[in-house]
Amino acid sequence: MTEWLNEVPWDKDGLIPVVTQEAGSGRVLTLAWMNRDALAETARSGEAVYWSRSRRKLWRKGEESGNVQKIREIRLDCDSDAVLLRVDQAGGIACHTGRESCFFRKLENGRWVTTDPVLKDPALIYGKK
Amino acid sequence: MTEWLNEVPWDKDGLIPVVTQEAGSGRVLTLAWMNRDALAETARSGEAVYWSRSRRKLWRKGEESGNVQKIREIRLDCDSDAVLLRVDQAGGIACHTGRESCFFRKLENGRWVTTDPVLKDPALIYGKK
Repeated sequence: MTEWLNEVPWDKDGLIPVVTQEAGSGRVLTLAWMNRDALAETARSGEAVYWSRSRRKLWRKGEESGNVQKIREIRLDCDSDAVLLRVDQAGGIACHTGRESCFFRKLENGRWVTTDPVLKDPALIYGKK
Repeated sequence: MTEWLNEVPWDKDGLIPVVTQEAGSGRVLTLAWMNRDALAETARSGEAVYWSRSRRKLWRKGEESGNVQKIREIRLDCDSDAVLLRVDQAGGIACHTGRESCFFRKLENGRWVTTDPVLKDPALIYGKK
């Protein structure tokens, strides 16, 4: 039952970009990447698992913060080069800065302006001392 | 006033992935790509302009179909490696297949299943004879 994974034309690095959206609020939370193992594990476990390009390993979203993403839907686009996850975001926080969404800056009059509040201090989220 | 463009760490191909979301419905419409010129022109004109990786040229969304995307917001994510556009999608159709969203397939029981209706015949959208 891995035919569906074969339909994804993984790029030359074996990856595909993944848009993740909070199902309740509709807010776009993150743009991340998956390899084949990450997508397979996301579908199997029902929680988002990405490929960390910087750490070069599978990254179970929420493994440190507890802010896991429960999968409601996995979607594929028309030319199969992007995935969309609709999720329930635990804790209401997807960003490592303690904000709901990673897209917390908005272009205003030629500047990127931070528009979203920090909901929880990252030091508390990640238990740094 | 191009400082904001310099803050984008364009990838080795000079591109950044762009998520586009319908502002009204919250539906994620497309995942596309921009180079510096495309992002500058999107901000200047108030309509989405992408970089077509297949045609290797700027692509004014809706230039053939009329289904332009009017920009409501341009957002940047925390590590500046993705852009989010919130738009008003003219015609209610973003996909070349005549559907609202390009993400019209959903994983169900190990298969990609088409869940969204074609709203307009692509032959009518693109005027093929």
